[in-house]
Amino acid sequence: MATAMGGLHGPVVAASWTKECTFQLLSNCFLQKPIFTKTSTAKLSFPCMPFIGVAFKKTETHVVSPNISSPSVTTGLLDAWDDEYGGVIMNSESLPMSANAFASAFQASLSNWKIKGKRGVWLKILQEQADLVPIAIQEGFNYHHAEPGFVMLTYWIPNEPCMLPASPSHQIGIAGFVINDKREVLVVKEKCPCSCSGVWKLPTGYINKSEDIFSGAIREVKEETGVDTTFLKMVAFRHAHLVAFDQSDLLFVCMLKPLSYDITIDDKEIQAAKWMPLDEFIAQPYYQDDPLSKKVIEICTAAQEDRYSGFTGHQLNSKIDGKLSYLYYDDLKNI
Amino acid sequence: MATAMGGLHGPVVAASWTKECTFQLLSNCFLQKPIFTKTSTAKLSFPCMPFIGVAFKKTETHVVSPNISSPSVTTGLLDAWDDEYGGVIMNSESLPMSANAFASAFQASLSNWKIKGKRGVWLKILQEQADLVPIAIQEGFNYHHAEPGFVMLTYWIPNEPCMLPASPSHQIGIAGFVINDKREVLVVKEKCPCSCSGVWKLPTGYINKSEDIFSGAIREVKEETGVDTTFLKMVAFRHAHLVAFDQSDLLFVCMLKPLSYDITIDDKEIQAAKWMPLDEFIAQPYYQDDPLSKKVIEICTAAQEDRYSGFTGHQLNSKIDGKLSYLYYDDLKNI
Repeated sequence: MATAMGGLHGPVVAASWTKECTFQLLSNCFLQKPIFTKTSTAKLSFPCMPFIGVAFKKTETHVVSPNISSPSVTTGLLDAWDDEYGGVIMNSESLPMSANAFASAFQASLSNWKIKGKRGVWLKILQEQADLVPIAIQEGFNYHHAEPGFVMLTYWIPNEPCMLPASPSHQIGIAGFVINDKREVLVVKEKCPCSCSGVWKLPTGYINKSEDIFSGAIREVKEETGVDTTFLKMVAFRHAHLVAFDQSDLLFVCMLKPLSYDITIDDKEIQAAKWMPLDEFIAQPYYQDDPLSKKVIEICTAAQEDRYSGFTGHQLNSKIDGKLSYLYYDDLKNI
Repeated sequence: MATAMGGLHGPVVAASWTKECTFQLLSNCFLQKPIFTKTSTAKLSFPCMPFIGVAFKKTETHVVSPNISSPSVTTGLLDAWDDEYGGVIMNSESLPMSANAFASAFQASLSNWKIKGKRGVWLKILQEQADLVPIAIQEGFNYHHAEPGFVMLTYWIPNEPCMLPASPSHQIGIAGFVINDKREVLVVKEKCPCSCSGVWKLPTGYINKSEDIFSGAIREVKEETGVDTTFLKMVAFRHAHLVAFDQSDLLFVCMLKPLSYDITIDDKEIQAAKWMPLDEFIAQPYYQDDPLSKKVIEICTAAQEDRYSGFTGHQLNSKIDGKLSYLYYDDLKNI
């Protein structure tokens, strides 16, 4: 089913749950902070978002029950919104804070949702509501994902395999290949007592939240070496599994052009940094013995010699989600 | 700092915490199920993993305290392992289940860790231990990430900004561009009452946990249309932010060669599927009006006309992490 490529498929409202549908559904509801954060009341308009259309527009008709902070809390239903995939999203702002009140309101709501044929239930519990976590778990909720400040739990009502979507699964790393006009590569030696401690390496790191790949490469190079650069092209990427948090990892190798040359290392992470002749860099036995590294260096060398183009990033708008995002492709092909 | 590209930088053991170091550290400890799961006792050997070397090898010397399930539970220290970045990883298998026992053991352990100059504390609380979540939060822990079955919390000891790594931030999607010898594209119409409901689109979806990009593309096309394919090349990708769960999203456009032609749709997600002449597909006003979609289709067309190469996937080993993973690059450049 559709993903974030709005223009290729656009909004999706499936007649039944699908992992991706739900995921896109959530992509919208999570963008709609009002549903899940303290700023809720501050924002009542919901722009059309990718894959969702006008889903989650908060109107009275979406409110399953009166706010449970009312006196009827113990007998009332939990405040929640229907989603367009047959599920409900509970309002974390009006959860009863006592175990009994939550349990009874949830049981009443669950009966109500079952009658209505609802499927997935989404419950975001804020850090200050942590007392509700064991209660929700006891009621049959399962953890879905968490970030500092909250944990998201889900409950699957149908008597069939859960089709709720997975949480984010990848970290995005970059390696910066910075080469100057003298065919010298910017390399670092990390503070590392292990087998590769003596090896000169490319600066690498993970991109920050909502950071673009090329920006992350420029930032990491600057942080580790003090050298300013500009992005030229992404020449290759590695996809590895069972890495951090037992999840997966994509590492993009970015070719960067230096804009400055003086080196100032980040001595918390880096032992040394320097400009090293490319041939010397390649000749390090450590890399010659490693098929993956050897190939990456061959690719970088070909790119430096204009024998390889790679992908550049182009900011394009999608009318579906109204987003300006980067499309990476080979723009030397007269596309 | 280093990421999953072992060969480019290899193991990292920093003298001080860094987001990436910690992250790689965790990448290893999370791979080491023994530390965090019920299978703990089943596995005592720890292979050298990326970025870590032999970190986390469980030996008596790493045990900070006797198992707190001993009678000394209320006065004892929590069972934990030092990590090589100045932090500790608590053993979720031997956490005291009573609030008081946990709180007092944690306070005693914290004092001990402070004296030792420890920095980050990692606490994995299994689903069946949910009663400990509010207690840990009360003690100053914060949520880090969660998956069905557990929630991971962290505690940052130093009186300085927390430098612990972020949890996975991206979902990986694919779009399958499948074109046959008659220059017909495999397109689907999704069950979608929104603005693009009448539009013929490329099959799309998210890859599964630990699934490779090309495999995910082949699977999604098969699931949605019943057509068997083989991967030819990845021609472009889009990087979008603030998508699902307020996180980011990478969508890889994959060109696939059909191995079968009969269509069987997945009627849960798909309204219709067919082979559509490429010119007809391109001519859809919906795409002509969308800059992002238009560019992607231009790239796919160029690829179909052999005017564009894109990246293919090559399985390569890295001696650092001993992993066989895929490196994607343009192999038409005699690399």
